Amino acid sequence: MARIVMKFGGTSVADLDRIRSVADRVKRQVESGDEVAVVVSAMSGVTNQLVGYCQALSPLHDAREYDAVVSTGEQVTSGLLAIALQTAGIDARSWSGWQIPFGTDGAHGKARIEDIDGALLVARMQAGQVPVVAGFQGIGPDNRVTTLGRGGSDTSAVALAAALKADRCDIYTDVDGIYTTDPRIVPRARRLDKIAYEEMLELASVGAKVLQTRSVELAMKERVRIQVLSSFEDGPVPVENGGDGVSRGTLPGTLVVDEDEIVEKEIVAGIAYSRDDAKVTVRKVPDRPGVAAAVFGPLSEANVNVDMIVQSTGADGTTDMTFTVGKTDLARAIQVLEAAHGDIQYGEMLTDPDVAKISVVGVGMRSHAGVASTMFRTLSDRSINIQVISTSEIKVSVLIGVEYTELAVRALHSAYGLDVG
Amino acid sequence: MARIVMKFGGTSVADLDRIRSVADRVKRQVESGDEVAVVVSAMSGVTNQLVGYCQALSPLHDAREYDAVVSTGEQVTSGLLAIALQTAGIDARSWSGWQIPFGTDGAHGKARIEDIDGALLVARMQAGQVPVVAGFQGIGPDNRVTTLGRGGSDTSAVALAAALKADRCDIYTDVDGIYTTDPRIVPRARRLDKIAYEEMLELASVGAKVLQTRSVELAMKERVRIQVLSSFEDGPVPVENGGDGVSRGTLPGTLVVDEDEIVEKEIVAGIAYSRDDAKVTVRKVPDRPGVAAAVFGPLSEANVNVDMIVQSTGADGTTDMTFTVGKTDLARAIQVLEAAHGDIQYGEMLTDPDVAKISVVGVGMRSHAGVASTMFRTLSDRSINIQVISTSEIKVSVLIGVEYTELAVRALHSAYGLDVG
Repeated sequence: MARIVMKFGGTSVADLDRIRSVADRVKRQVESGDEVAVVVSAMSGVTNQLVGYCQALSPLHDAREYDAVVSTGEQVTSGLLAIALQTAGIDARSWSGWQIPFGTDGAHGKARIEDIDGALLVARMQAGQVPVVAGFQGIGPDNRVTTLGRGGSDTSAVALAAALKADRCDIYTDVDGIYTTDPRIVPRARRLDKIAYEEMLELASVGAKVLQTRSVELAMKERVRIQVLSSFEDGPVPVENGGDGVSRGTLPGTLVVDEDEIVEKEIVAGIAYSRDDAKVTVRKVPDRPGVAAAVFGPLSEANVNVDMIVQSTGADGTTDMTFTVGKTDLARAIQVLEAAHGDIQYGEMLTDPDVAKISVVGVGMRSHAGVASTMFRTLSDRSINIQVISTSEIKVSVLIGVEYTELAVRALHSAYGLDVG
Repeated sequence: MARIVMKFGGTSVADLDRIRSVADRVKRQVESGDEVAVVVSAMSGVTNQLVGYCQALSPLHDAREYDAVVSTGEQVTSGLLAIALQTAGIDARSWSGWQIPFGTDGAHGKARIEDIDGALLVARMQAGQVPVVAGFQGIGPDNRVTTLGRGGSDTSAVALAAALKADRCDIYTDVDGIYTTDPRIVPRARRLDKIAYEEMLELASVGAKVLQTRSVELAMKERVRIQVLSSFEDGPVPVENGGDGVSRGTLPGTLVVDEDEIVEKEIVAGIAYSRDDAKVTVRKVPDRPGVAAAVFGPLSEANVNVDMIVQSTGADGTTDMTFTVGKTDLARAIQVLEAAHGDIQYGEMLTDPDVAKISVVGVGMRSHAGVASTMFRTLSDRSINIQVISTSEIKVSVLIGVEYTELAVRALHSAYGLDVG
């Protein structure tokens, strides 16, 4: 017997038929002997409709009222799933965020969970009842409903799993796991049985949007094991042999865990790409102390997030600064830097939105040399020019022309031996 | 300055445009110097959709889950109206039933309000904030959301007005007041400026479905003055001259009040009709003590509500019993009486669903004789046969053939001098 939190997203509960099949899935989990709690999102489309109402009334609406309105979507789903479970013969009841309660910091529209009182739910689960919890919400110190920001139901599920000391948090999505890269680009991409939290974070932040980043951060901090599963496949209920909640490799989907749980680490777990960035180069900046602050200070004040940064100093006492910003922030970045021209005294500013960031990710890199050089050689062999390089302990990223995205991803996927078969 | 509770029903908040015009209406009330609290229903269609979901999943769904699901409709409206008010420059915030709290007896799906803590709302109103309260809901002793039954938002508004010691409860509907009879039958029907609680109850229970019956009962008990207004007319804000909340006749719509407040009482306030009843006659029952109990006991046990009852004893030692039941209960009533044939030993049972109940209602009857005889003579002059008569202190009702409904209503409306002009 294990204690499992099961989370179902909006497409998994899109209509009454889908809700019934979620109830069947939960029922099979319960009947396998597990203690189960469920977290649900709003039926797909509902949240967008409610957000649309608020925005139509006022683009600058009160975040507290937004929360009161938008949080109802998950409350509806939790009640409906409780009815569907009862109809299927399973003892169940719905819980709103304020009932448990899911205490948050009160930052309306983007609250962080601070404290969950799991005692009541544990007692119910031990008595055989399935709590069906409305995701995406909690209650702030002002006794008002707070939402966690878009995609917050993943975070709700992980936080609940931590509070309940659950053996696993199963997140049902519209994909059947985490792949070595985007299968639309590389048909021979392989589903990973396991992936380390850090790898998942790097893959998520560069475009593999299966799990909300915050939920993975929280899982890593609280050591919650996440299983990513498809709610559209009617596979067997995950069975674990040991009764200790530790996977023996019989689970479908992908398990996101601490790297210590991954015995046979691959050097490279996956190849990620992102076309959401733009490149900015500020040329011929007088090379003096404080120049980086002069460039990046105003951008930070304007809430422009800067990612890859390269500085190269020329022989003439000037410096070129190259960096990336989100494509949606490019216009603002240009405006800010033009306004700061007097302070920075750069020669010229060049921008290029037609770039892609390609990343090779893997915790195995920590103990293996040569990963970066394999990447550079592979791209060079395809005559793909590398514009910017940045590295971290478990990731190497390069910026290339956007037209080479697919070619680069496919070449790297093969070069690191990730192709199936 | 007065303290006013304003209640807006589903058609009044049907879409964002209607919500904006409700905000305008509330704004004008606030700017006239009044302290205002608002109660809202769900946007029209929303409650039906949510109820439909619950029923589709299970006709015998858990009422607690039904409440959790269905109560969200009003929560959405209250948040949206708060945003619309803020956008119009009015300080406002939404309140769910559990936040105030609106304490109920916990009877899920049909709860009764037991206690409202109005202190917090009064403090906010005195500070210039408009509370926007989700109608139709409260919280039970089990800390779960309870709904009040269909149409319960009227009751929410009246209960809130009582708790806040409001001068008036303005209920905005899709009609502009209470009429002397149905204007679709009598185009010269007249809108009443005032009507007594008892009259309103009699009119409501016989088919004038403007206010929920429970809300009028509660208003009578708590002495809450209800103003029925149209939310579709852009008339002036009700202005009261005396500052004491007592109407000086300048209000649009109809004021539902204690009869002591109605100085010039009409003898007859209105003519109501209902085609929802069926007539049952049990003939040739041996006339002995206990025969009424033998007939009506089994009906009561089967939850069949019996209304008008007439007993006539013949010369042969037998009795005929005639009474009405709701049309929807007729089949059950027949079944019950056939099963009880051995106990009652009646000669035969006759039923007739093609009847109408016509009622003349007015508190002035208490002090004026001749109301009933005017009714009988008027109907007799049109050759309309009266099948059953029943009377109360403020009402005379007759049962007639359903085909005479309009003719009878028009003739009586004229006979009591209710026609306009």
